[in-house]
Amino acid sequence: MKCRTCRGPAIIDLPRHNANFCAEHFLELCRRQVQKAIDEHEMFSRDERILVAVSGGKDSLAVWDLLLELGYQADGYYIELGIGEYSDHSREITESFARERGLSLRVESLRDDHGFDVPTAAKVTGRVPCSACGLSKRHLFDRAARDGRYDVVVTGHNLDDEAAVLFGNALRWDVEYLSRQMPVLPAGNGFPRKAKPLVRLSERETAAWCIVRGIDYVIEECPMAAGNRHLQYKDLLNDLEEKSPGSKASFYAGFLDRMAPLLASTEHRGAVHRCVRCDAPTGGESDVCAFCRLVDRTKDRDPVPVEMLLSKKARLRLARQGE
Amino acid sequence: MKCRTCRGPAIIDLPRHNANFCAEHFLELCRRQVQKAIDEHEMFSRDERILVAVSGGKDSLAVWDLLLELGYQADGYYIELGIGEYSDHSREITESFARERGLSLRVESLRDDHGFDVPTAAKVTGRVPCSACGLSKRHLFDRAARDGRYDVVVTGHNLDDEAAVLFGNALRWDVEYLSRQMPVLPAGNGFPRKAKPLVRLSERETAAWCIVRGIDYVIEECPMAAGNRHLQYKDLLNDLEEKSPGSKASFYAGFLDRMAPLLASTEHRGAVHRCVRCDAPTGGESDVCAFCRLVDRTKDRDPVPVEMLLSKKARLRLARQGE
Repeated sequence: MKCRTCRGPAIIDLPRHNANFCAEHFLELCRRQVQKAIDEHEMFSRDERILVAVSGGKDSLAVWDLLLELGYQADGYYIELGIGEYSDHSREITESFARERGLSLRVESLRDDHGFDVPTAAKVTGRVPCSACGLSKRHLFDRAARDGRYDVVVTGHNLDDEAAVLFGNALRWDVEYLSRQMPVLPAGNGFPRKAKPLVRLSERETAAWCIVRGIDYVIEECPMAAGNRHLQYKDLLNDLEEKSPGSKASFYAGFLDRMAPLLASTEHRGAVHRCVRCDAPTGGESDVCAFCRLVDRTKDRDPVPVEMLLSKKARLRLARQGE
Repeated sequence: MKCRTCRGPAIIDLPRHNANFCAEHFLELCRRQVQKAIDEHEMFSRDERILVAVSGGKDSLAVWDLLLELGYQADGYYIELGIGEYSDHSREITESFARERGLSLRVESLRDDHGFDVPTAAKVTGRVPCSACGLSKRHLFDRAARDGRYDVVVTGHNLDDEAAVLFGNALRWDVEYLSRQMPVLPAGNGFPRKAKPLVRLSERETAAWCIVRGIDYVIEECPMAAGNRHLQYKDLLNDLEEKSPGSKASFYAGFLDRMAPLLASTEHRGAVHRCVRCDAPTGGESDVCAFCRLVDRTKDRDPVPVEMLLSKKARLRLARQGE
């Protein structure tokens, strides 16, 4: 197996590109793909200040690392979600990453700063944990960007993530969600600009980036997400990808190329007013935004242990890991 | 297991409707669903003359039977494709169906009337057999409708077919195909109106219709189609359906409801002129339509036996059936 670029020994095969690469030229490929995504979708410039939403997983650490490598100004922002040992571990990993490289990282804790955590919110609302988690992250990313006067919030969504979300939105033909599923969303109505520079890299590629670059990252999936629909769609797209390499990328790129322009006219973020409590933009009918309502509902509740919310299957798996 | 309507013993469970039905009320459900599709999409009226494209499979025989039951005027049209024993068998089945019921059936043979068959066309063009087969069927259906002055051509496409085609078109984001994937296509540019009255019935339901009604149909899949992408997509949608019953129907209905209106403006059948040879409408650059060109290319070629075009897997399966 030889590197396509230098014919030296390859360390990774990429069936989608029908090629193999050595470590050096694999990193070059990743940099090129990320730069291409940034330029193609006019995500941000080198003069702008970027806030990277970091979780401690491979994608968010890779995107932070890549942006710095490419000469962008990027600070990190981590939210401790209170998902037991998983959160403890990811916080440690994220803080070490920033410390070792002398980077600026802001850390916020749902429990310490807002009085609740994801498992408790899930229990109180009776909805899946991913729902309260997503709501909280969106709200706090937006706020951190406003407070810190950042030009753009960057997330580590990769090609696999975007293709799976697209797949779910297409299965439901959710036209509003489809119209918003772009690699960059402009600022508007009080919301900051958002960008996803990893849309041209697969999950396997961001993991390989971290390994080659010696970046320590949280390997385990969030225990709350195990078996959710998003992961089912990922599996399904992986089956298709295995049968015809490149189909995942062409599914996503084809959407951006041919369908998104037809949906552009339907895009809107609704009539937006300000939350009377925290001043965040909110589109709902209530005077108070969904995050502040969640804070109210979870106030003074005893913390719910992660295990209580896991499916039987997930509990068994965790128990087996502990043996 | 009791019938939802009469509480008598049920013969079929329909998880999508979350209900079971006895034979009588299952038939009633099918009639109602077909009538609903015809009315909702304004497919045709009882004054109009319908040409049903019949293959001898469950779907086309079920739709012919259902239309007559519902009081419509429907004649049959069968094309013998020259796919070995599979074609011999389906022709016999179709002719018996019509004869026993005293129905009008026109039969045309690719080999006898046009000098070629599907396996030979596939070999000569070097493309998958489904390509020449689809081209020939579309051309001859259109012609038969014009010649017989029918108001509309009806095909037996069911919910599973339409969902699988939709799935493939969405995976490729083929906007033109997506815009044409409607249960009824109006006449225009010399093409007849086309309608699919079975879009609200699943494959399992059309098979059950035939069994309950005592209709003998060709059970085996076309040997040329085995393992094609369309069938892969069907399997994949069946997996999703098993996990959440109703997802196939909501995928298709959601498309019609929310996406199709956005695509309506892109619908067009291109600039159409007439084939100088056969007078059929054709959109290509050539003076001669694709069907006439296929007739030319296959002229005087020795017939290719079906087995030559089968995959190794399909040949093994056929051999096993013969044992």
